[in-house]
Amino acid sequence: MPGRNAFSEAERAAVYRAIFERRDVRSQFRPDPIPDDVLARLLKAAHHAPSVGFMQPWRFIIVRDRARREAVHALFSRANAAAGQSYTDADTRSSYASLKLAGILDTPLNLCIVCDADSSRGRGLGRATMPEMSLYSTVCAVQNLWLAARAEGVGVGWVSIVEPDELCRTLEVPEHLRLIAYLCVGYVSHFEDQPELATRRWETRADLSELLHFDSFGEQDGQRARALLDAGRPEGSGNRTSR
Amino acid sequence: MPGRNAFSEAERAAVYRAIFERRDVRSQFRPDPIPDDVLARLLKAAHHAPSVGFMQPWRFIIVRDRARREAVHALFSRANAAAGQSYTDADTRSSYASLKLAGILDTPLNLCIVCDADSSRGRGLGRATMPEMSLYSTVCAVQNLWLAARAEGVGVGWVSIVEPDELCRTLEVPEHLRLIAYLCVGYVSHFEDQPELATRRWETRADLSELLHFDSFGEQDGQRARALLDAGRPEGSGNRTSR
Repeated sequence: MPGRNAFSEAERAAVYRAIFERRDVRSQFRPDPIPDDVLARLLKAAHHAPSVGFMQPWRFIIVRDRARREAVHALFSRANAAAGQSYTDADTRSSYASLKLAGILDTPLNLCIVCDADSSRGRGLGRATMPEMSLYSTVCAVQNLWLAARAEGVGVGWVSIVEPDELCRTLEVPEHLRLIAYLCVGYVSHFEDQPELATRRWETRADLSELLHFDSFGEQDGQRARALLDAGRPEGSGNRTSR
Repeated sequence: MPGRNAFSEAERAAVYRAIFERRDVRSQFRPDPIPDDVLARLLKAAHHAPSVGFMQPWRFIIVRDRARREAVHALFSRANAAAGQSYTDADTRSSYASLKLAGILDTPLNLCIVCDADSSRGRGLGRATMPEMSLYSTVCAVQNLWLAARAEGVGVGWVSIVEPDELCRTLEVPEHLRLIAYLCVGYVSHFEDQPELATRRWETRADLSELLHFDSFGEQDGQRARALLDAGRPEGSGNRTSR
């Protein structure tokens, strides 16, 4: 019974490859246009995300217009400068300043994904106790698109260094809608082997065993957690699981 | 240059298969235990989600204890009864009552995924303008796990019909952490061909072309949107793209 509905070993390896080789891309973008068939597949992947009550609250703004992207880039530049100034430690500040954090103008395509939390679709199912589920459903759509993009050889970078209200005004998003993600989408010269924030020593990969709790929060057991994690190695992903 | 980093056609088909065949499972669970190697791969998939500033704010509570799950099920039952009563229309109320919305006690494993938004990991990068990014990063971890589970033949159901504060008290989650997802995880007899809320006529699949906007919100063009979407058909997914 277990595994009766499992994918083949090769299919599982492909799914794990997308998960482990997906990157938040900022620096390796190419100007090559994204063909409609590829963009269509990415949008359909997003549209097949789970959603609370089958609400499908995601709305997609396909931003190719140069003037719009330049306006968004200006918002990013201002927010990024302010963020850099917020670091009082000189080393951190220069480290932050050395990071490239968005490819808004480097990519032929930007995608703004917003959530219509007021939509009557789904008839409110699942949202009485957790109204934030409409936002989370839209985030699941972003992740579906991101993984599909990796499989297509397309890089995606999520820009969160921008004031949501200013961005929404720039793209004429009505006030009742909520910004979820502004994505830079484009082909890349290559995908980095490791997250850039790790190789640039901004942050390290956490030890997963330290993030596991058993039956209640705070019930941690390093030996038990490591034994559990050592049991699993995704087919085809080699040593990537240790990343 | 385009597609140079793309997966093979077979690999792309596997990724899209996971995306299109993933289901929110409530009714087809089997009691068979989830082996450690499978659970470990699911957790590693979640841990390789994108996170703002490489913050990795997700924390996992592996809930197998029957008493804990019974306590959570009691919270769900109360919230579900209240939700059902909130529908004033008799048909909607009976339709809601006929839906099975959680498999908390049907599955050998429940997973509670919480977010530590106060974590200093990531040094605040990307969160000054969008503090909600720590929550969204944790949702991306949920979606990674969900897709990996489909590839492993494991069903996942996200329970949002529960009071977050009560659930957190039940699992002893400190107040500074935020509930993101309570998942029922188990092998299934089969995966439904369509979302249950669609076959049970609770809600229909939206027409993706009506969710697309060009360069600014409100700029919609049905003909242009349909032409774009008709260009894409994921390899290996057959007519699923129309769902």
